[in-house]
Amino acid sequence: MPKNIFYAQSGGVTSVINASACGLIETARANPELGKVYAGRNGIIGALREELIDTSLESSESIAALRHTPAGAFGSCRYKLKSIEENRAEYERLIDVFKAHEIGYFFYNGGGDSQDTANKVAQLSKEMDYPLTCIGIPKTVDNDLPLTDNCPGFGSVAKYVAVSIREAGLDVASMSESSTKVFVMEVMGRHAGWIAGAAGLAAEQDGDAPHIIVFPEVDFDKAAFMRKVKSCVDKYGYCAIVVSEGAHYADGTFLADAGTKDAFGHMQLGGVAPALANMIKDEHGYKYHWAVSDYLQRAARHIASATDVAQAYAMGKAAMEFAMAGKNAVMPIIIRTSNSPYAWEVGEANLSDVANVEKMMPADFITEDGFGITAAAKEYFSPLILGEDYPPYKNGLPDYARLKKVLVDKKLPDWID
Amino acid sequence: MPKNIFYAQSGGVTSVINASACGLIETARANPELGKVYAGRNGIIGALREELIDTSLESSESIAALRHTPAGAFGSCRYKLKSIEENRAEYERLIDVFKAHEIGYFFYNGGGDSQDTANKVAQLSKEMDYPLTCIGIPKTVDNDLPLTDNCPGFGSVAKYVAVSIREAGLDVASMSESSTKVFVMEVMGRHAGWIAGAAGLAAEQDGDAPHIIVFPEVDFDKAAFMRKVKSCVDKYGYCAIVVSEGAHYADGTFLADAGTKDAFGHMQLGGVAPALANMIKDEHGYKYHWAVSDYLQRAARHIASATDVAQAYAMGKAAMEFAMAGKNAVMPIIIRTSNSPYAWEVGEANLSDVANVEKMMPADFITEDGFGITAAAKEYFSPLILGEDYPPYKNGLPDYARLKKVLVDKKLPDWID
Repeated sequence: MPKNIFYAQSGGVTSVINASACGLIETARANPELGKVYAGRNGIIGALREELIDTSLESSESIAALRHTPAGAFGSCRYKLKSIEENRAEYERLIDVFKAHEIGYFFYNGGGDSQDTANKVAQLSKEMDYPLTCIGIPKTVDNDLPLTDNCPGFGSVAKYVAVSIREAGLDVASMSESSTKVFVMEVMGRHAGWIAGAAGLAAEQDGDAPHIIVFPEVDFDKAAFMRKVKSCVDKYGYCAIVVSEGAHYADGTFLADAGTKDAFGHMQLGGVAPALANMIKDEHGYKYHWAVSDYLQRAARHIASATDVAQAYAMGKAAMEFAMAGKNAVMPIIIRTSNSPYAWEVGEANLSDVANVEKMMPADFITEDGFGITAAAKEYFSPLILGEDYPPYKNGLPDYARLKKVLVDKKLPDWID
Repeated sequence: MPKNIFYAQSGGVTSVINASACGLIETARANPELGKVYAGRNGIIGALREELIDTSLESSESIAALRHTPAGAFGSCRYKLKSIEENRAEYERLIDVFKAHEIGYFFYNGGGDSQDTANKVAQLSKEMDYPLTCIGIPKTVDNDLPLTDNCPGFGSVAKYVAVSIREAGLDVASMSESSTKVFVMEVMGRHAGWIAGAAGLAAEQDGDAPHIIVFPEVDFDKAAFMRKVKSCVDKYGYCAIVVSEGAHYADGTFLADAGTKDAFGHMQLGGVAPALANMIKDEHGYKYHWAVSDYLQRAARHIASATDVAQAYAMGKAAMEFAMAGKNAVMPIIIRTSNSPYAWEVGEANLSDVANVEKMMPADFITEDGFGITAAAKEYFSPLILGEDYPPYKNGLPDYARLKKVLVDKKLPDWID
């Protein structure tokens, strides 16, 4: 009897995580010695609750459409399993569900925390003498997984933010003589400035947007920042700024939390862009506009990087191939073999080396004044946004996959969270 | 001696206003009996200051690239000429500049205010016995010009917001079981809900995002809104909301101005999305995310509507052709001749009928509960987002026009604003 496969999406979703699912499922379907692929409904929660989506009931067209569909088609979750010591019952429940549905393969598509979980499940299955192949699949817009050159999901956000600031920059330039002089775009990145940095690709010639990038790696120096804003407006007529949501002062206070209160006196969450824009208005009096892309940036499959899509698919495919080759507790990674022309290949990392290690942006990616990216950064970022991979359109809108998501019949008692 | 042509971009720019410029300039170039096309540097300000960009010095490739380049390539402005009675000197200066540079054609590419100005210039030139052909070219993301079925610039914003809420909606759906349950996306539209309404195209089946649209046409009923948010979360697991920046209470107070103060005690400008998101959090406790697209939506040439691009180009071309045919004080418009299949043709309106008339969204476009769009609205909006017209890419980024923008030598004394 062939063993079935469990696949779950974890953490914040991306515009290409479904491409990894597509790579995995298509590879499994091409190998009749494998069983069915069950996807966790809302990630690992689906395994705990025994809510398993039977992907074998989806048409091959629907599965193929996952390649161009953003977000988590099976549902994801923010749910971190505790340590085995703290909550052994949770891990045992996972194993029980896997046993009940003859699951021999566990694929966990997520970031650092998820790879840690996958690694723990691998350990426990050994301990419990239930043979389970555990393979991680990398995913995170934060680009902070170690060992892999870059993370699937990141390249498409990078492309979105670079395209967006280029376009908005042209808009502000048009208006600046008599109206808006400053534009602030907020991007994701609490701890690392990978996304903010990638926006810097839009600036190819002197005067191009963005003129200033505010990184979480650099303590915010208000005086230096204000001087730079003014010098940009004086020189170019306007100033286009990209700010990371994690931008903060030297004492650790986030710019976004710098005292803004709502009508009820609550501290207002988020919104470093308006905070920064207001600050500039107070200092220089410039008319401003600001944008917060939030989920739009990580869901923007319509402007995904073809490189990112190909890599996301390859990670799902490689994960399945690793499993078939008898590997365990590993994760496929992306290895850059050449910068120009860009070339990459699939590599392999042990989950134990991946778990709980956060890769920060190299210090030499940020210019000396702290407000821009270096040539080294551009060399790294540039290939990751290469190529367009447009989804099909129907009635003027992207035609994204609609899955049936039929659940497998339950065999176990309900799980009490 | 052939008469030269003056062209100016006016008001908030769009992702396709340069396509109109392209249509006009290419048509002029194809007709050797016409003189040079001078573009106002930063719109009409350029005419007053005698800052005229000589477009004949731009390569045909650069002019062709305008078709796929967002924002105002020659610069725009927010500068409304006063009435002739109030500031006759300004109008006389325009005529002086036109005389000095042998300009016989005045094209003004803008919204209602601009068409009013073009109409006044037409009157004054007659009065001053300086023969000047004045033609308007419609442009506004607000879609509020009368007579024309729709306005160039609107279809592309419509497409952007519909694509964006579809993508972000899928993202929230993925996360909603254990994390974000509410997503609020703010779109442009101070007085009319055309843009917010168009976002409703993303919802094709029951449960699709957006679930709620907050229009400036409908007084905000907080209790009804909160009930609807809850019922969406109960039914679909999440709630995706599109809110127009002009959303307001019955007493006229904008939701965005509902008491939010910054660290300095100033009223905070803008940001109806965070205001609404906070309100929902206070009422229901749902975890939320919010986005404000701001300029990104109107600059997003990367996801422009092919219909919109074609119409913008056609308006520029028709404007030039009207002028060559001896017409004056008119504006080309878009006439819808069929809904399915969609068909349109170029029509003509008198500037005097266009000036200062704001076209509001029909009342029957909004559903009875005030939070959605009707079938009539979908029938109207749907064709306007049809087709993709992707710009060329270089190094993973859209390759937008870079003009030389050489100014014509001045012949007059400086203009003192």
